[in-house]
Amino acid sequence: MYLAKIYVTYKPSILDPQGEVIKSALHRMDYAGVQTVTQGKYFEVKLQATDVDSATAETQSFTESLLINQNTETYRFDLSLVADEVDV
Amino acid sequence: MYLAKIYVTYKPSILDPQGEVIKSALHRMDYAGVQTVTQGKYFEVKLQATDVDSATAETQSFTESLLINQNTETYRFDLSLVADEVDV
Repeated sequence: MYLAKIYVTYKPSILDPQGEVIKSALHRMDYAGVQTVTQGKYFEVKLQATDVDSATAETQSFTESLLINQNTETYRFDLSLVADEVDV
Repeated sequence: MYLAKIYVTYKPSILDPQGEVIKSALHRMDYAGVQTVTQGKYFEVKLQATDVDSATAETQSFTESLLINQNTETYRFDLSLVADEVDV
């Protein structure tokens, strides 16, 4: 079984109003060293696949078709092999 | 300047309805290999700090006080040293 960790962020050209609000709040709370804040989404997906190539292809496919908005967002992901869950 | 990448997820005991909805949608789209889906938040914060210890302390402090709900969420973060932005 594979674990895909998928990180979704806005494309650099897209305004991130939530990030700006968080930055302003941190400045009001005296975290003066904070320069930039961006907020994105993070998914952990466990999937069964025969090998790492098919896990990669499947992760790319469902991320682009369901998890992100390709007009405004970009993504990257890591894949790792994890043990299957077993019933004991 | 330091870049903190902060990953926020629900605690294991907390229901993740969004993750369940995404899993159902992926099954309807014939991604039958998907076993579990969890959705979380992802932040990238650039901050000025004198050293890695103070960057770590500051990141922990503002994450716990603003970015997460400690009743339901847990987090981890990576810190990396990045070049300061310079005006040319």
